[in-house]
Amino acid sequence: MKKSKKHKIGMAPGSLVYMGDITTEKPTLSLIDYCEDHLHEKMIEIADLADIKPDEKNKIWLNLSGIQDPNFISEIGKQFNLHPLVLEDILNTDQRPKVESYGDYLYIVLRNFEFKRSGNLSSRQVSLILGKHFVLTFQEQVTECFEPVCERLRNGRIHIRQAGTDYLAYALIDVIVDQYFSIIEDIGIHCETLEEKLLRKPSPTLLQKIQVLKRESMELRRGVWPTREVINNLIRNDEGFFEASTVLYLRDIYDHAVHVIESLEAVRDLLAGMLDIYLSTISNQLNKEVRALTVVTMMFMPATLISGIFGMNFDKMPLLKDTFGFWIAIGIMALIAIVMGLHFFRMQWLSRRGI
Amino acid sequence: MKKSKKHKIGMAPGSLVYMGDITTEKPTLSLIDYCEDHLHEKMIEIADLADIKPDEKNKIWLNLSGIQDPNFISEIGKQFNLHPLVLEDILNTDQRPKVESYGDYLYIVLRNFEFKRSGNLSSRQVSLILGKHFVLTFQEQVTECFEPVCERLRNGRIHIRQAGTDYLAYALIDVIVDQYFSIIEDIGIHCETLEEKLLRKPSPTLLQKIQVLKRESMELRRGVWPTREVINNLIRNDEGFFEASTVLYLRDIYDHAVHVIESLEAVRDLLAGMLDIYLSTISNQLNKEVRALTVVTMMFMPATLISGIFGMNFDKMPLLKDTFGFWIAIGIMALIAIVMGLHFFRMQWLSRRGI
Amino acid sequence: MKKSKKHKIGMAPGSLVYMGDITTEKPTLSLIDYCEDHLHEKMIEIADLADIKPDEKNKIWLNLSGIQDPNFISEIGKQFNLHPLVLEDILNTDQRPKVESYGDYLYIVLRNFEFKRSGNLSSRQVSLILGKHFVLTFQEQVTECFEPVCERLRNGRIHIRQAGTDYLAYALIDVIVDQYFSIIEDIGIHCETLEEKLLRKPSPTLLQKIQVLKRESMELRRGVWPTREVINNLIRNDEGFFEASTVLYLRDIYDHAVHVIESLEAVRDLLAGMLDIYLSTISNQLNKEVRALTVVTMMFMPATLISGIFGMNFDKMPLLKDTFGFWIAIGIMALIAIVMGLHFFRMQWLSRRGI
Amino acid sequence: MKKSKKHKIGMAPGSLVYMGDITTEKPTLSLIDYCEDHLHEKMIEIADLADIKPDEKNKIWLNLSGIQDPNFISEIGKQFNLHPLVLEDILNTDQRPKVESYGDYLYIVLRNFEFKRSGNLSSRQVSLILGKHFVLTFQEQVTECFEPVCERLRNGRIHIRQAGTDYLAYALIDVIVDQYFSIIEDIGIHCETLEEKLLRKPSPTLLQKIQVLKRESMELRRGVWPTREVINNLIRNDEGFFEASTVLYLRDIYDHAVHVIESLEAVRDLLAGMLDIYLSTISNQLNKEVRALTVVTMMFMPATLISGIFGMNFDKMPLLKDTFGFWIAIGIMALIAIVMGLHFFRMQWLSRRGI
Amino acid sequence: MKKSKKHKIGMAPGSLVYMGDITTEKPTLSLIDYCEDHLHEKMIEIADLADIKPDEKNKIWLNLSGIQDPNFISEIGKQFNLHPLVLEDILNTDQRPKVESYGDYLYIVLRNFEFKRSGNLSSRQVSLILGKHFVLTFQEQVTECFEPVCERLRNGRIHIRQAGTDYLAYALIDVIVDQYFSIIEDIGIHCETLEEKLLRKPSPTLLQKIQVLKRESMELRRGVWPTREVINNLIRNDEGFFEASTVLYLRDIYDHAVHVIESLEAVRDLLAGMLDIYLSTISNQLNKEVRALTVVTMMFMPATLISGIFGMNFDKMPLLKDTFGFWIAIGIMALIAIVMGLHFFRMQWLSRRGI
Repeated sequence: MKKSKKHKIGMAPGSLVYMGDITTEKPTLSLIDYCEDHLHEKMIEIADLADIKPDEKNKIWLNLSGIQDPNFISEIGKQFNLHPLVLEDILNTDQRPKVESYGDYLYIVLRNFEFKRSGNLSSRQVSLILGKHFVLTFQEQVTECFEPVCERLRNGRIHIRQAGTDYLAYALIDVIVDQYFSIIEDIGIHCETLEEKLLRKPSPTLLQKIQVLKRESMELRRGVWPTREVINNLIRNDEGFFEASTVLYLRDIYDHAVHVIESLEAVRDLLAGMLDIYLSTISNQLNKEVRALTVVTMMFMPATLISGIFGMNFDKMPLLKDTFGFWIAIGIMALIAIVMGLHFFRMQWLSRRGI
Repeated sequence: MKKSKKHKIGMAPGSLVYMGDITTEKPTLSLIDYCEDHLHEKMIEIADLADIKPDEKNKIWLNLSGIQDPNFISEIGKQFNLHPLVLEDILNTDQRPKVESYGDYLYIVLRNFEFKRSGNLSSRQVSLILGKHFVLTFQEQVTECFEPVCERLRNGRIHIRQAGTDYLAYALIDVIVDQYFSIIEDIGIHCETLEEKLLRKPSPTLLQKIQVLKRESMELRRGVWPTREVINNLIRNDEGFFEASTVLYLRDIYDHAVHVIESLEAVRDLLAGMLDIYLSTISNQLNKEVRALTVVTMMFMPATLISGIFGMNFDKMPLLKDTFGFWIAIGIMALIAIVMGLHFFRMQWLSRRGI
Repeated sequence: MKKSKKHKIGMAPGSLVYMGDITTEKPTLSLIDYCEDHLHEKMIEIADLADIKPDEKNKIWLNLSGIQDPNFISEIGKQFNLHPLVLEDILNTDQRPKVESYGDYLYIVLRNFEFKRSGNLSSRQVSLILGKHFVLTFQEQVTECFEPVCERLRNGRIHIRQAGTDYLAYALIDVIVDQYFSIIEDIGIHCETLEEKLLRKPSPTLLQKIQVLKRESMELRRGVWPTREVINNLIRNDEGFFEASTVLYLRDIYDHAVHVIESLEAVRDLLAGMLDIYLSTISNQLNKEVRALTVVTMMFMPATLISGIFGMNFDKMPLLKDTFGFWIAIGIMALIAIVMGLHFFRMQWLSRRGI
Repeated sequence: MKKSKKHKIGMAPGSLVYMGDITTEKPTLSLIDYCEDHLHEKMIEIADLADIKPDEKNKIWLNLSGIQDPNFISEIGKQFNLHPLVLEDILNTDQRPKVESYGDYLYIVLRNFEFKRSGNLSSRQVSLILGKHFVLTFQEQVTECFEPVCERLRNGRIHIRQAGTDYLAYALIDVIVDQYFSIIEDIGIHCETLEEKLLRKPSPTLLQKIQVLKRESMELRRGVWPTREVINNLIRNDEGFFEASTVLYLRDIYDHAVHVIESLEAVRDLLAGMLDIYLSTISNQLNKEVRALTVVTMMFMPATLISGIFGMNFDKMPLLKDTFGFWIAIGIMALIAIVMGLHFFRMQWLSRRGI
Repeated sequence: MKKSKKHKIGMAPGSLVYMGDITTEKPTLSLIDYCEDHLHEKMIEIADLADIKPDEKNKIWLNLSGIQDPNFISEIGKQFNLHPLVLEDILNTDQRPKVESYGDYLYIVLRNFEFKRSGNLSSRQVSLILGKHFVLTFQEQVTECFEPVCERLRNGRIHIRQAGTDYLAYALIDVIVDQYFSIIEDIGIHCETLEEKLLRKPSPTLLQKIQVLKRESMELRRGVWPTREVINNLIRNDEGFFEASTVLYLRDIYDHAVHVIESLEAVRDLLAGMLDIYLSTISNQLNKEVRALTVVTMMFMPATLISGIFGMNFDKMPLLKDTFGFWIAIGIMALIAIVMGLHFFRMQWLSRRGI
């Protein structure tokens, strides 16, 4: 809801306008071409795009980090024959995860989440295009999230080098889904910290934090749920983008995605339970305070009445002339207070922390 | 629920009676005929309808703004051979979004929403009829909502002029769905304003506003949900109204519609959370007030009792004859108050804003 | 849940026992036979049933209002060859809306609702049997609900006279579904009246009324939901009871039924929201009362203590001999009260309606 | 959850161990063999089982009431060639309703509920085996529930005698489903009694009773819901156990089962509403009590202060020497009390039942 | 959420890293080979794996308890030709229950739960591989849970020895599902203990325990729900792993799994009801305390005012000189107190346990 779409209403589809946050970082375009025998890795410029010729022996992975410059996108689009809608969707960084087939290539949108210790969740769009001998990835900003896959390619792991680009695509999706686990873990820890504070001292500020966390877990859910569908679609896709052996691995990520969703449900249950604890802690405090008020009133009212009675100005009153009259009155007051106190003690009203 | 259907019970279907609000604005009938090479745009009268001959070279877009006059509808119906049920539905402005095929043409109902800053949501029905070489649109009132599409036609954008009327229909639907985004954005902002007020000073009036917003988000949902189905039906429609290339674009609106629905769910979550915050803020305030009452009672009751005791009229009472008796009594009162105060301070009952 | 089924347990199916409320109204049997050219309308007796010969030129509509006499039913059953289960179901007025095909005819059960201004919802079963050239309707009690259709037949509207009995059946179902709208409208108005009262003065009696309304909207839902299914079944029925042109009209009622269900959901949301408003209004009142209590206690307690102090009987007390001693004491009391009052005013505790 | 399954963990399937409550009643084995012309009814012993030869002319209904003796079950199993799993399931009286086909016969499990006026719901398992010319029923305890069907057989009702054993099975299932209605009716009456008490005097004991009723309606639901599925399966079963004419009757029970489920939902709504009424009645009472407290405090505090002021021991005080001083003071007190009283009356705080 | 997955992000699939808790217990590898005639049971070492030759006459059950050593897993993997993903999943002990077919064998993951009396639920992964003549089981830790099946094998029960390994697999799954019952039973007992405490003395600590139980029942549900799916998949599996006769038994476990899920729902309902009882018990206590406060205030305030009035220092006051003045004043106080007391008694404010 943060990004305004208003200025796009009525524009022709395919108009390349970047919808995300503008950062000052320069976009970087990195190219890895590899096969079983070799791996070349370099940073390239737009002008170099024309030289790229992906084939069986030169599988290509082109990664663009930072997409605020539509020229980059349109040039890459020309080189790889991408549909205008794909280019528009890459720039429109507000997409739900989805997979779309354009005959020659698959266009996959995923979301990359980041959860800061302060309790702030942000998400970035990752577009992935899987063609016959190439994989293109578009990241909203420069991140390290694909680094582990680069490492595996560099280290010459046999399988990832031998296998087709479908396996590379799988590896990239796997990295993204795996990160969801660590995010849910972080949210879980954040929850537990909040719950502890809640039991010590409930306050509306904490409640607001719980609400924020709830909203964030909803947002995460909106990102993960369609991801599951995306992977399911990839598994059932029968256009031959994925080989049977890779589909086996996709089935594994699918399980992970389901697991992530279930963990999220657990987190949401946790948060719902925290609200209950919050409300009941407040109620309990109210009870304790009213009890304190009742105890004080009950213990002092009778004594005050007695003192009032003996303060009346009648000519003839009992005890007033008595030598021990005063002490008898005080004694009655004390007696009532003691009886009351014992009564409250028996009813366990005075058992906890003084009052 | 606002418009009465009672007077229609038992009327024959196809009776043309306008069900919406009556406005004084005169209906306007605008005609655009266009193809790759030319574009003619003019306001026409009923009498001119007979001259309209849509063909490949003269694609027609006829837009009627303001439909309170059934004559307009029935004349247009005659000219384009529309089914009586279609004409009835155009006038019955309380329809859910739907798509119906009548062989020669598709009848599409959509809803156009407007959200005022005051928090008021209103909706108007837009009927769209897509034939071989013509598009008819019927708007409940004169609005600017199709203006961006007119602009694109006027500016001679190649694609929209070249493509068939199916692409024009797509562009019109796209404009309507895009507006949903800006409405949800406005509702979101309205929500945040309410939430701020809520935390500062909760009141039943605010609660009522939240309920209104809830109801409106429900109403919006009832408009958007079937819209998604409409677009889905258009995508899967196999009667050839939409060309394969346009279906690709429809798939894009479908994604938008899904996105809108998810954003709406987020708004509803926000509103549900606000109710929780409201109730707990009230509870908190109650606690604070009871606490204040308890503190005051506890600090004054003992002192009052002491003053009562020394006001008793016993002949023999200690301290009364004492020179400093009065000050000793006052001192005891002060001591008790100080001890109480320290106790409350330690229990953090006095830490916040005075009392 | 109101009607006892106990006495039917274990009875053979097909036993004709009337299950509904017994009324003293005499059942009336009205016969309309019509075709494009003519229309005869008369009240008949059981004995006349044998003369009825429906054919293409003499389409028959037989309406029985009041079904407490099983003889009527069984005679009609004999004349039109109805299955014993159908006759049983006609008398068993507790049925859910359903449609059942018996080869030669369709048996349709619908429910007719009535909502009284007092907030009382009642429902009556309407059974409709659609055969080749006849329509039979069975109403639990004498009502006017089919009057509009009679009018249309009498007025010689071409379509309804020309078309087959399927169109007549459609018209009757349409009348029933249209009435749902006016009932939901009435319930909506009733809701708004309640909500106003609620905000002025919440009471458990109002809450009970809300619960009753909730239950009634549930009951209505239980009647409308299967009606939608019934219409859907009629649309998809491939036994040729409905002609293609009539199915188009059924599609229209289907839309209406969906609309009714959505409006009902809106009503239920309204009612759920009212409960929230109720509870929070009560909480708010409690807060206001506790606040009043606190304010009074805070303003009088210090003054009372001061009066108590100067009422003590010490020999040596300051101010007592003073000429203005009394007024100084009163002044101190007033000062404390004013300071307190300003404090409460600043905290907005005294801003609303006195206390 | 009441019956322990622990001692069965790891036992071979088919081990015949009775899992239900042990009663002292002796199991009874009754045999009815019947056809259109005759009906023989007798109590038999295990030894007599071998003589049973069901055929077209001698349709057999064997009913075992009380199943705690595994020998009975295993003997019957041998005689009718039942699968060990069936025998195990008959004894394992904790089964969900289900239907299983074993080729030669159908094994149907249903549950028979009993609702005592005290609000106690108990359920017993009824196993029914439908073969070509025989029906076997196994009841957990001796009950009268099949008596109505016996009556119909004895009375020589043509249809039930003529028809195959499938019709007998239908009649037995019908009796069980019909009983659900009377149970829901009883629960409904129980609910209304509770609701009345609730509005008069809410107490945690009542709340607990509501919870028990809630749990019981859940339990009933768990019994009825799969029963619906069972009947649905019987309807769609294509192994020829049920003739087309009987399926028509099954469709009728199916409707009843759906009706039962909907009535149950209504009961659950009723119970959920009762909780809301309970909580709000408590809140209302709290408000009334706090109001009473506030009224008393407000009316007496000012008077008490005035009495305190005139009880001060200043030498110079106004009014003290005045002849009517006392009455003026009393008058001021009374005046304040009257003004307060009028204020409260205007705010409708004193309008209801004294305080 | 407890186990960190972070260090696995980006690792190649098939990397064998144990993800569970490390225990010091030595893994044990037990081998049972059996057929109708013989049974050999022994503990073996890795080195002995090569000698295992499963065939029709020597059905093999290899059980590994304790899987922290990846070498064991990879050796077994080599011997039985297991896919790397299977080996990875065996070690990754955080899996949801699932079944995956790898052509030659089925890989089944289940979870084994343990519920301690302290209210602590823990779960362990059990992997089961079913091949033509072998069953492999992998348990996270050394447990006794398969002991009953061993017993049945040892005791020479005909069926389990005769039948194929599919029947053994069924028996093992049956043991695991049966244990769910005893766990739910334990949780139910735990619930009832909590509920009793709750009604006696509600406290936030109890609420927290309820929340923990809720979370655990959710966790159990996440384990049981997919188990049901697993069994369903096994039933519908058409690759011939299970013979028709065994499928009959699987159908039985399926019923059990459904039953477990329903019992779990009942437990969750129980827990939800407990929260309602908790909140309402607190509210009730509050009411009782406020009532006590009100009663005391009402009974003492008037008396205190009267004592104050007769303590005023007016020269002329009635009754003061009266011999019985004092007793008249006391009498009035007593009278007011008695009237109040009767009033409260009539309103049932004093009927319960003193105050």
